Amino acid sequence: MSARVLDGQALADRMQRDIKPEVAAFATRHGRPPGLAIVLVGDDPASHVYVNHKVKAGTEAGFRVDLERMPATASLDDVLGLVQKLNASAAHDGILVQSPLPKAMGAGAEQKVFDTIAVEKDVDGFSAESVGLLVQKRPKLVACTPSGVIELLDREKIPIAGRHAVVVGRSDIVGKPMAMLLLHRDATVTIAHSRTPDLAAVCRTADILVAAVGKAGLIQRDFVKPGAVVIDVGVNRVTDAAVVGGLYPESHPRQRVFKSKGALLVGDVHPEVADVAGALTPVPGGVGPLTITMLMMNTLSAARARVGV
Amino acid sequence: MSARVLDGQALADRMQRDIKPEVAAFATRHGRPPGLAIVLVGDDPASHVYVNHKVKAGTEAGFRVDLERMPATASLDDVLGLVQKLNASAAHDGILVQSPLPKAMGAGAEQKVFDTIAVEKDVDGFSAESVGLLVQKRPKLVACTPSGVIELLDREKIPIAGRHAVVVGRSDIVGKPMAMLLLHRDATVTIAHSRTPDLAAVCRTADILVAAVGKAGLIQRDFVKPGAVVIDVGVNRVTDAAVVGGLYPESHPRQRVFKSKGALLVGDVHPEVADVAGALTPVPGGVGPLTITMLMMNTLSAARARVGV
Repeated sequence: MSARVLDGQALADRMQRDIKPEVAAFATRHGRPPGLAIVLVGDDPASHVYVNHKVKAGTEAGFRVDLERMPATASLDDVLGLVQKLNASAAHDGILVQSPLPKAMGAGAEQKVFDTIAVEKDVDGFSAESVGLLVQKRPKLVACTPSGVIELLDREKIPIAGRHAVVVGRSDIVGKPMAMLLLHRDATVTIAHSRTPDLAAVCRTADILVAAVGKAGLIQRDFVKPGAVVIDVGVNRVTDAAVVGGLYPESHPRQRVFKSKGALLVGDVHPEVADVAGALTPVPGGVGPLTITMLMMNTLSAARARVGV
Repeated sequence: MSARVLDGQALADRMQRDIKPEVAAFATRHGRPPGLAIVLVGDDPASHVYVNHKVKAGTEAGFRVDLERMPATASLDDVLGLVQKLNASAAHDGILVQSPLPKAMGAGAEQKVFDTIAVEKDVDGFSAESVGLLVQKRPKLVACTPSGVIELLDREKIPIAGRHAVVVGRSDIVGKPMAMLLLHRDATVTIAHSRTPDLAAVCRTADILVAAVGKAGLIQRDFVKPGAVVIDVGVNRVTDAAVVGGLYPESHPRQRVFKSKGALLVGDVHPEVADVAGALTPVPGGVGPLTITMLMMNTLSAARARVGV
């Protein structure tokens, strides 16, 4: 048996295509496209890659996307000042500050910036107020990765109500909001984490298992109840041949990819889980692409809410 | 075997006594006592009882407690105006608006009022921002009932880290914040609710079982793993003799209480659970008294934070 593949890339492509006429209709009706401002501070190479993806996806869908770059030497006050300007900007419906901010800004800087984004424009959903509204089941804008997972489950007609969902990982950006979204859809929800004893046994109780830890291949065959739906949120860049060898046999095509590139993107779920799961998101091509799509959906929602639709 | 009784009333009494010199020291140092404003709108008899308890406990501990009463005919704007005045008041460190507000104010009125309370004075912890800060593990002021449960577990030296906690009930004021507090103390946490199939089986996986549903005697003997810690947050006023009969045999002293008063306060946990649980909070005299004590603790914390201690 091999698990049904939940093709997040295909869904993301379809949603990206479907959103275009809606963005265009907004622009026609309101004399401007919905607008997204992306703040990028410093020179983190991975951040540049992520931001470029977001700019490209947004621009292609017809959004106005403004990339606001600041040097790594910018102060926290500079960033807060920019966010406040964008809060007041008529042209911008969504504001996203790319994480991480330069370390020199201090430990609490990032969350302080997130909290400064107006709740109506907080398309990443990372501010305290956005999180509180989600928990109280009156969400405005919800973190993109967990809402992408819900979108995928819905489109794949996977029932949530009455199921037992286990979320492995308790981060603010995935684990905790994911748990809340599943709870509000009437799942019984367990949040497990690095301090959970016998993680395998806890995971085996799941009808829907969401792995969001950031540990390559953590979720193995014996963590999964036969037929369960497994959602792999992990994106781990592996450069160790031994780790890749533990995931894929020598003959596997991904070994060739690894050997030619010297690195491989893998999920938190071991490939052998496909033998027992009922359905499974691949990495890459599963949850990842939906995150950007949900950012676009959030920006369009924010724009509509601002003009009172 | 009979479960150890977790005497919340005794702990609350001890904490109420211990807080007195701290309140007095604050008053001496800052030239005023820590101040709590309680807003009571309308004539709900149960609300009057609760508010009187809070006024009495606060006053006895040395707080300034101002009861701000408004008629049932007050408008939402009147209440919001009062809250804004209290937000700006130098004498008030904590603000509590007694729930429920009169129905005539509309469905969203209560939460709108809660959200208007300054986060630094939100001693009930019900605003979106307070909730978000809790979820993100940087709490300012946390809802009193769940934080009272944590206090009780700590004082009774019941370990939380690495245990499996099951919270039954997903309310904004108990279930969800309770789950977050247990999670942040490194429990593996399951949130179950009315839509959970086979609730008994889910509850039996708990090392720590928190019942916060509001259904008399819901948690029965077979819901509890032998030796588990059971926390009963339910407070149900039962007037049906059949229900009381299902909880207590005819010969039980509480039957006499019921017969003389025509009503009985009972928890969500069936008394027979005492035969299997390792420890159990009674109702009344368990979690309830701690709620008011935590309100006092929150008010003192708020006062200290405001003066920069």
